[in-house]
Formats: sequence, structure tokens, C-alpha cells
Amino acid sequence: MANIAIVGATGLVGRTMLRVLQERNIQVTSLRLLASARSAGEIIAWNGNEYTVEELTEDSFDSIDYALFSAGGSISKQYAPIAAKNGCIVIDNSSAWRMDPDVPLVVPEVNPQSAHEHKGIIANPNCSTIQLVVALKPLHMHFGLTRVIVSTYQTPSGAGQKGIDHLLDEINGIAPTKRISSHKVAYNTVFHAFPVGELFTEEEIKIKNETRKIMGIPNLPIAVTCVRVPILGGHGESVIIHTEKSCDTNDIRNILNISSGIVVVDNPLMEEYPTAADSEHRDEVFVGRIRRDDSSENSFHLWITADNLRKGAATNAVQILQLLEEQQ
Amino acid sequence: MANIAIVGATGLVGRTMLRVLQERNIQVTSLRLLASARSAGEIIAWNGNEYTVEELTEDSFDSIDYALFSAGGSISKQYAPIAAKNGCIVIDNSSAWRMDPDVPLVVPEVNPQSAHEHKGIIANPNCSTIQLVVALKPLHMHFGLTRVIVSTYQTPSGAGQKGIDHLLDEINGIAPTKRISSHKVAYNTVFHAFPVGELFTEEEIKIKNETRKIMGIPNLPIAVTCVRVPILGGHGESVIIHTEKSCDTNDIRNILNISSGIVVVDNPLMEEYPTAADSEHRDEVFVGRIRRDDSSENSFHLWITADNLRKGAATNAVQILQLLEEQQ
Repeated sequence: MANIAIVGATGLVGRTMLRVLQERNIQVTSLRLLASARSAGEIIAWNGNEYTVEELTEDSFDSIDYALFSAGGSISKQYAPIAAKNGCIVIDNSSAWRMDPDVPLVVPEVNPQSAHEHKGIIANPNCSTIQLVVALKPLHMHFGLTRVIVSTYQTPSGAGQKGIDHLLDEINGIAPTKRISSHKVAYNTVFHAFPVGELFTEEEIKIKNETRKIMGIPNLPIAVTCVRVPILGGHGESVIIHTEKSCDTNDIRNILNISSGIVVVDNPLMEEYPTAADSEHRDEVFVGRIRRDDSSENSFHLWITADNLRKGAATNAVQILQLLEEQQ
Repeated sequence: MANIAIVGATGLVGRTMLRVLQERNIQVTSLRLLASARSAGEIIAWNGNEYTVEELTEDSFDSIDYALFSAGGSISKQYAPIAAKNGCIVIDNSSAWRMDPDVPLVVPEVNPQSAHEHKGIIANPNCSTIQLVVALKPLHMHFGLTRVIVSTYQTPSGAGQKGIDHLLDEINGIAPTKRISSHKVAYNTVFHAFPVGELFTEEEIKIKNETRKIMGIPNLPIAVTCVRVPILGGHGESVIIHTEKSCDTNDIRNILNISSGIVVVDNPLMEEYPTAADSEHRDEVFVGRIRRDDSSENSFHLWITADNLRKGAATNAVQILQLLEEQQ
């Protein structure tokens, strides 16, 4: 039984968090929905009741046990410490705290023990990182990863509702009122934003740094290119792994098949493989196209998909909450 | 001055061939437009005149100097030898003859000399191969390639008009009458067809084999994953190259800048990089996102785009024709 606040309750991830809390029968004593002044007053139905969205203030966290944040980095930077000081456990979906050495960055299938080392704030990793590490961790445990190469195929919904609006407005021939790229997004390939002076996008830097932190391998060699494509439903990732130990595709398939949170879909003869659309509304990570890469020794191809709003954000945050509740 | 036939003149590539022939001021003495019986009788305007599409028969190649084929593999298999026996030079855009050791597979920027070794048939490579080798060749000449890793982002137009129809029908909420995948193509990621018993798709196998043949490096290590995404305009490719010689990103940029048929677009500060849409209607290959990959020694990232119907098909075929004409 817990008193729960959602910060950013009207956003795409916030609304998905509400859905996942209900689906997973989280025992909620009280629920507080928080957002900016602009959204305050909105009514949101949840689990048979109606809730009025309140404006986020410094007093919002009184008697709250868990605050799930998904309202952007600057809100998290400002309000997560206030919530934590109030004795509330923050599970933060923004990038604000992820690389802070005092903040655990948690994927329950990968490093559940880290969740218990929190000092009030736990960070939820980036969507494209979560689906990657869920698949990589068991393979690392068994075969030892020496290099990871990733090219992503990401839905604009990673940028929230405005990403979907930019895409669908353009598809419908409307000039987008909100943009996530200076380029056309519909029927096109674009990249995420570049931090000033960087050749890598912020998304690419996140995958590198977060994967290393979650897996506990500070020097894991990772090559990454992130691309936004006009898809919905989830992200795809074309991955190559190099392993320390010699193994074959059956070994990899067998390990993935018995690993938590993973569904192997890999039957080329029947054209069965994971797709972004098939991942939508699902909480698992899907892996297929498991093939030996003969361009290097001990090298293998994987194709990984997941619903970026669920396992890539809301579901993972609620799983962290469940992890903490179970330990009490 | 040449007598030219287009086989598959009503298709997406055939129509683009006509456009490119006109743009490049190819001196055409006579033009014969050939297609299946179904399309015979259609009128196509070209360069101020109207042409009636004729049904392809064994007699279609009388007094033709060059026949540009783009009507599928089985038509090429059957009719290209007949055309060649008539003294006609076939430039074939299908996959039928590409790996035949007696048939040169030509990209004019890469292996122009091979075009002159033909025995009546010259093969035009696959679209995703052409844009790759145009960028790889100069880098191989200067730095020596030891491994190439590719993940593609391909428009459904690679499957011709039916690929575009499948995508746009689904986007418009219409059940597609012609499909290129058993999966949904709109807002999704799908793979090309799998040959029976293969873990790699036919597109992936083409990139591997054709790249090695065109570059003249039979054992070049290549890792490849091909993905269809709901874009138009052209294909994107996320590429990693390993080089024999040590070099830096400036060396790579400088070489690409002076290489034929390549435009470098790489200014992350201004969000300038190649996109699929920006490649449309262009004949060049675009390269950007040139970055050192610190996950391995002498390893670099490239992002490559091109218009798959032009440089990836029609333009390359017409360039081969020009190459042969210039030598006469």
C-alpha cells in the first residue's frame, strides 16, 4: 500500500505510467497527479475514480511514498531533491540524475540490487538503453561481451506527444505547430539533437554511458548510431555483439529464451521476427534475427524491439516501484 | 547517337530511366519502350514526343544498340541473352546476372574499367550496394578496408511501385491490394524476403556478394542487416569501417570531398546531415556523421544516403551507357 504521485501525469509517459499501475494492480492508498500550471485542473480517470491534476509545487510531496517523475530534466533537477527530502522515493524518468554516482540507474531484470542503494532518487534509464541492456545482460553473464555495435530505429514518440504530433501533422499535410527536428520527420530519417560541440547526439551518448553504468562495465566498448524513423509502437535496434567465449546461435537463443523479460521471435522461414508495431502495448523486450556475423570471430547479429513508452519508460519505472515494495 | 530500348518502361525505375536519359541529354536516335502485354499500348511522353509502349518479344531488339532492363529477374534471364545475341548491349537492373562471373557488375565511380569487359550483358548493382561502394571505394584506396558493418534504412520503393502503394495504402487506411510484406509496413520496421533456409534476407546477401565483386575484394569481411522503414526518397545506411592504415576523421572527410559522385554533409552544430528525403531527385551519394568509433582501433562511423531509384538504379544504368558511348 503506497501513496503515489505522478509528476508529468498528462504527458505521454505519465499517462502510460497510470495505465501500467492499474494493469499491475499496484495497491495505491492515494494518488496525486501533478503537472505544470497549464495542465492543472484537468480531470483524469483512473481505476474507476476521477482525479484532478494539481500544479506541481514544493509542497506536492507531503505524505507521498513514491513520486514517479516524467516531466523533463529541469523539473526533475529542481523537484526530485525536494521530494526526497520529504522522505519520498523518487523514480525519475528524465536524464537529470542518471549519471550521478549517488543515484542508482536501474533496470529490474539487469541490476535490481542497485535499486536498494538509493538515497532518495532512483533513475529510470533512457528507452533505447533499457531494451538493449535487457538483452545484453544475460549474454554478458554467459559469454562475456567485448564489444557492442548498435544502430537504432526509433519512433518520434521518444520525444513525447510532440514527437507524434510532428510526424502525424506532416503525414496529414499540416504544418507542425511543435517540432522535434528542423528536418522533415514524415517519410524521412533524422537524428536526435546534438549537444554543442559534439559529433554524437545526446541519445547516442546516453546509450553509451547508461549501458556501461547499468551493466557495471565502465569500459565496455560500444559503437552507437541513433536514428529516428517515422514509426510508432516502439524502437528497433540492429545490434552486433562480440563475445569473449566461443558460442553459437543456439547457445544465444537458449540463454535469451530463459531470461526474464525477453521473448525470442526468430523464425525467418515463416517471416516471423520482432517489429516495432508488434512490440506496442507489450512489456517485454523482443529479440530475433539471431545470426552469426562472419565478418569477425565470436560475433553475432541481434534485432531487438520494445515499446519505448512501456518497457522503455513507464513499465520499467513501475517495476522499480514493485521491486522496492516487495522488499519491505 | 544510339538506338535505345527500355524494358520495363512503365515501372518506377523504367520511368526514372527515361527522366535521366533526358536530363543527361543522351543523344537518342530511336527509343523503344517495352513492357508486358498488360502495359502495351500505353502512351508515354518523352522529350517532346509521344511513344507507344510495345509488348516485349524476341524481336524487340532488332537494330537496338542499348537495352536498359528493369522488369524483374525472370524477364532479364529470358530476354537479356536474346538481346545480346542481336548485338545489343544489355544494361540489366535485375539481380539475374549480377553474380555471373562472365557479367561485369558496374558502378562507374568504382570500377568503370569492368564495363568494357562485357560480353553483351552488364549488370547494374542493387540500390543499397551502389551507394555503399561509392563511399567505400575511395576510402579503401587510401586507408585499406578490413571490415565493413552496415545497417540499412530502406524505402519500400526498392520493391517498385507496389512498395510505395503498400505503404501509402496503409497510411491512408486502405487495405493494400499489393503487399511487399506479410507485416504492416506503415509506421513499422520490416525485413526483406528470406530465401528458403537462409537466416539472411536476399537484400543482405546481395550487399555482401555485390560489394565484394564490385570492389574486387572477394573476402572483404562485411556484416549487414537490411531494414525497410516507412520512408520515401532514398535509402539510409549506418556504416562502420575498419581501416588498415591509421587515419582520422579529417583524412576521411578530405578523401570523400574530392571523390567523384559524393557530397559530404556533416555539420552537426547546424543540424546538417544527409537524410533520405534530402537525397530524393539527386544523383549523388551523400555522406555525413563522420565520427571516430572508439569501440575499436581504426574504426569510423559513416551515414550514407542516396536516391535509390536514381543513383541506386536508373542513374547508375544511364551512367554505364554514357561510359560505353564515350569510349567509342
